[in-house]
Amino acid sequence: MLIRLEPDAETAAVQGRLKALGLWFTPLADAAGRVCALRIDPPSPPIDPGRLRRLPGVAEVLVGASPHPRVDAQAGRVVTVRRAAFGGPAPVLIAGPCSVDAPDTVMAAAEAAAAAGATALRGGAFKPRTSPYSFDGHGVEALGWMRTAADRHGLAVITEVLSERDVERVAAHADVLQIGSRNMQNFALLRAAGAARVPCLLKRGMAATVEEWLLAGEHLLAHGAAAVIFCERGVRGFDPATRNLLDLAAVALLAHVHRQPVIADPSHATGRRDLIEPLALAARAAGAAGVMVEMHPDPARARSDAAQAIDRATLRRIGAGLGLVDAHEEAA
Amino acid sequence: MLIRLEPDAETAAVQGRLKALGLWFTPLADAAGRVCALRIDPPSPPIDPGRLRRLPGVAEVLVGASPHPRVDAQAGRVVTVRRAAFGGPAPVLIAGPCSVDAPDTVMAAAEAAAAAGATALRGGAFKPRTSPYSFDGHGVEALGWMRTAADRHGLAVITEVLSERDVERVAAHADVLQIGSRNMQNFALLRAAGAARVPCLLKRGMAATVEEWLLAGEHLLAHGAAAVIFCERGVRGFDPATRNLLDLAAVALLAHVHRQPVIADPSHATGRRDLIEPLALAARAAGAAGVMVEMHPDPARARSDAAQAIDRATLRRIGAGLGLVDAHEEAA
Amino acid sequence: MLIRLEPDAETAAVQGRLKALGLWFTPLADAAGRVCALRIDPPSPPIDPGRLRRLPGVAEVLVGASPHPRVDAQAGRVVTVRRAAFGGPAPVLIAGPCSVDAPDTVMAAAEAAAAAGATALRGGAFKPRTSPYSFDGHGVEALGWMRTAADRHGLAVITEVLSERDVERVAAHADVLQIGSRNMQNFALLRAAGAARVPCLLKRGMAATVEEWLLAGEHLLAHGAAAVIFCERGVRGFDPATRNLLDLAAVALLAHVHRQPVIADPSHATGRRDLIEPLALAARAAGAAGVMVEMHPDPARARSDAAQAIDRATLRRIGAGLGLVDAHEEAA
Amino acid sequence: MLIRLEPDAETAAVQGRLKALGLWFTPLADAAGRVCALRIDPPSPPIDPGRLRRLPGVAEVLVGASPHPRVDAQAGRVVTVRRAAFGGPAPVLIAGPCSVDAPDTVMAAAEAAAAAGATALRGGAFKPRTSPYSFDGHGVEALGWMRTAADRHGLAVITEVLSERDVERVAAHADVLQIGSRNMQNFALLRAAGAARVPCLLKRGMAATVEEWLLAGEHLLAHGAAAVIFCERGVRGFDPATRNLLDLAAVALLAHVHRQPVIADPSHATGRRDLIEPLALAARAAGAAGVMVEMHPDPARARSDAAQAIDRATLRRIGAGLGLVDAHEEAA
Repeated sequence: MLIRLEPDAETAAVQGRLKALGLWFTPLADAAGRVCALRIDPPSPPIDPGRLRRLPGVAEVLVGASPHPRVDAQAGRVVTVRRAAFGGPAPVLIAGPCSVDAPDTVMAAAEAAAAAGATALRGGAFKPRTSPYSFDGHGVEALGWMRTAADRHGLAVITEVLSERDVERVAAHADVLQIGSRNMQNFALLRAAGAARVPCLLKRGMAATVEEWLLAGEHLLAHGAAAVIFCERGVRGFDPATRNLLDLAAVALLAHVHRQPVIADPSHATGRRDLIEPLALAARAAGAAGVMVEMHPDPARARSDAAQAIDRATLRRIGAGLGLVDAHEEAA
Repeated sequence: MLIRLEPDAETAAVQGRLKALGLWFTPLADAAGRVCALRIDPPSPPIDPGRLRRLPGVAEVLVGASPHPRVDAQAGRVVTVRRAAFGGPAPVLIAGPCSVDAPDTVMAAAEAAAAAGATALRGGAFKPRTSPYSFDGHGVEALGWMRTAADRHGLAVITEVLSERDVERVAAHADVLQIGSRNMQNFALLRAAGAARVPCLLKRGMAATVEEWLLAGEHLLAHGAAAVIFCERGVRGFDPATRNLLDLAAVALLAHVHRQPVIADPSHATGRRDLIEPLALAARAAGAAGVMVEMHPDPARARSDAAQAIDRATLRRIGAGLGLVDAHEEAA
Repeated sequence: MLIRLEPDAETAAVQGRLKALGLWFTPLADAAGRVCALRIDPPSPPIDPGRLRRLPGVAEVLVGASPHPRVDAQAGRVVTVRRAAFGGPAPVLIAGPCSVDAPDTVMAAAEAAAAAGATALRGGAFKPRTSPYSFDGHGVEALGWMRTAADRHGLAVITEVLSERDVERVAAHADVLQIGSRNMQNFALLRAAGAARVPCLLKRGMAATVEEWLLAGEHLLAHGAAAVIFCERGVRGFDPATRNLLDLAAVALLAHVHRQPVIADPSHATGRRDLIEPLALAARAAGAAGVMVEMHPDPARARSDAAQAIDRATLRRIGAGLGLVDAHEEAA
Repeated sequence: MLIRLEPDAETAAVQGRLKALGLWFTPLADAAGRVCALRIDPPSPPIDPGRLRRLPGVAEVLVGASPHPRVDAQAGRVVTVRRAAFGGPAPVLIAGPCSVDAPDTVMAAAEAAAAAGATALRGGAFKPRTSPYSFDGHGVEALGWMRTAADRHGLAVITEVLSERDVERVAAHADVLQIGSRNMQNFALLRAAGAARVPCLLKRGMAATVEEWLLAGEHLLAHGAAAVIFCERGVRGFDPATRNLLDLAAVALLAHVHRQPVIADPSHATGRRDLIEPLALAARAAGAAGVMVEMHPDPARARSDAAQAIDRATLRRIGAGLGLVDAHEEAA
């Protein structure tokens, strides 16, 4: 955004008003060295140009067009999937195993999730794998296991789709199509997933700016997605102490400024089960509409990412911390 | 850490037990290709080697020595400065102007801070400045203004020291010496500040790992500092949407794993006053012992970083959100 | 890698030998505090374990298996595509427009490329687009234009494939399938592209480690790719002065240590045409087997990324700097 | 920079001209939605505003003032220190041990440096240490050893100063004061070092933007430094394969656009001696006025950072690669 000043504007007074509005700016001078415009810079909050136009001394306010009108139109909307209401008064807890490795474990996970107040079951049927030689999921069969387990407990199913060719099969079983962080800018997949016309959960790419993330959401909506739920899962950081760098300011930004449904995934963000509970609560305090966590009924037997899977008791504590269940009920 | 296996160990069983403990590891093989050791990798949580030594199949557990014994010895300690108890049951709220620009504004800030439940006053007398031509603070004179204002309201004074030569003068007025993020690895300053034998607030460097941060704290303690309070203020990120990238997982890690007194500074982390309140509450939920925020009685007149300074009403809401004051009392 | 010491080893002597080999390491102690192993740490260079086993005082050397055997097997190989030999004595220059916008411009680009000593033509027929509303290429039609233009000048065609569904159509016209940085971990696309059994050019992801990049190459080879040529195009950095952060140490690492065919793309890395020539030469000095640059016969009329497209004269200078053509010939 | 358009400007034509100049820009619209200005965005190259003012359709060009006039005034200058001419026709090779551990090793290093064509000796007398328990240099005594060794071979002495209190003592022995990356924004040290009125070598901070680096140089010049030589030594990256991430685009930017004397330090950038030679040559190709490398006559006995120290033969090869000595002379 750019503010052109009147020739006789009191520049210092205008700058003081911008400061009072929390804006960062750079004065720009003409060839004669006279300040005749103020450029609004990041990380300024968004502001109504009309409000700036009415300030004394302001001649004109110039703005760039929003590149993501469909995402903007989603602002303030509550996205409801079965009993899960993203953006409603209560946070949405989503839990389940990293990979769906057997019918009984996903059933146990769904039961534990429901008992902790979760309204959605997550789990990988198709798994993205850094190595071509790693276990990459049980595929369609696992989708059936998830659907059965979720239905038993009234949960929505959220699962990742990795290939354009799988979109229909996944959409036949899942309530929400998850786009993984590695595919945030896989535009062919965004197009195919959008065309399924169901809600999509869009994980942020490892090095994606918030603006690129919103634009990826625009791809989904432009191709027909019923809604986009954004999911922060940690960006690439430089410190091996945590697996990734959880960006809760981006969560606050999407929640409070862009007013989008946004959740956080502290499991992938940290890779450490000892940090998941405090960060789940921190995400909610930052404005997250929900939290997605990996849990496994028996972490020692998990086939992937076991180190970040929490157990039933921890999941229950998180549900209680989020106000979804009573902390002591289950023990009783 | 490294686990050597017994020659006849059931490798899969040992690996299952490590998974159950939330550990990441890599199997290592000898020249014959037989797995005979497991290397524990980041981001594994810390674990008592004795516990691993007792697992069936484990021959030996090898560990590196901690490089920061004095910081480790501080674990679990409550650091008390006047009425502020870092690590006590209530969070510590620290508030004040970016730079101390006049006696009356710092007095108004101290009054607003106290009214919001703060127990410490922050403010820059000596300011680090990216440009040599920017206002760099009123120096010693401002220290006196801060001390007077803080004493009027029973607040501790926390202020930055920029030069080895200023340590004594700053320590004469302040309760806590702040080391800024640009100086986290200014070892000459760490030595001089430590020698003042008062508590120090150590801001994390813009690109410092948690381990480097703890080691900088070790410098302070090794040279005599009474205590180190760690302060996360955002690391360098790639997204201009926020000024820096607030790393609340590092806060959770210091609070819950290293059990150090750690606070967060959402003002510098985001540079946006519209995100400070949710991130202050998120920091507390993540485990922060306190929160430091920039406030100004009249942001339009602030001489530096006005865009991230909150006003009196927002500060009050933060104090209420942290449970320090009643939300409605002041209005009454 | 881990070195177990003999009980009576002279630890200092072993450490001295490791230093002489350029290795970084951490001593590990047993429960009694005795150093009995040395863990080799990053960024150590690779070393033959047999060499370490023969050092006096070393009991055993434990190693993790390579996760990318097919990439390793490609070490030292020259990948030849028509007249372009990646890894041969002369560097390969690849040039062409960002997007293929018309038959005449791609023909002019091919002519300019050949005149500058290039042996491959690049150009986008299908373009990845951050915004769903941007021009995304002329598709299959543009592939035909490229093939015709390339054949006229004996050039290989390298072009990006964005969708699993397009692999066959693209492979029908192109000599090398390019996987873009946004798709480096799009495993469905890697599988489909590998199955075309042609050489692939694999751009590094924006936040991918070298190890993840090599593993993505392993995906391609495991699914049938004839060869993988790696392409560094800048990782995500924090400085807006350049569009991305060109990592020429990664180029040196792949070229000299992993001995893989690796090239650099300074156009996308910097986004600034004034830096492309020096960085193309720097990439070659670092060990790159080639350089890929964007050029446009008339940058003012380019439909995308015009700011990073160089003109015919600059391309010629780069070809001369790389020793492919005489600097003064064309003017004569 | 901002370009205001004439009311009747042909917007598309102006945009085409900006593209032809290699500029990135965003169109800005007034309240009626009419594009009436174009904002020049990073990573555009610098451009003379006068040139833009003369374009048809341009009403006015608004610019921000340069924040580093003294650095700008240094553009194109050759900085000469004894026989080393930074910015002259030949590159400057600077070599020496990480820390100066004994008179004989620094003497042997100086002899090897001179034999490889180096004109400056580097070495740490005072060492910055991440851990307070690491060896931190022999201090003033080592300065004397360096001076003696350098004088024997006609070399300039470049060494780091860590404390404001040491500036005079270091300046008494050294020709160039080095400011380390951890102190790039230690403004008290910049002030003190500048006041010594000698040339300073300013290493880039680990997470410093080019603009912040130039501003730190402005601090030195504003306080009296005779000249500033910039040194790129790798920024913080996310990949453990190399110790840091060498940013040669920043070198090209300083060399070719800002026309500042800039060198590169591939030793600290990579931490791997097997990458130093190709990256030294790449730095020169990118535009570096010189290269600084760590060498040790007997790496196995080096007291610090041995893994990145090269030996005499490798140093000689680098000197030959830079055209400073004949490759085969010494063997003869």
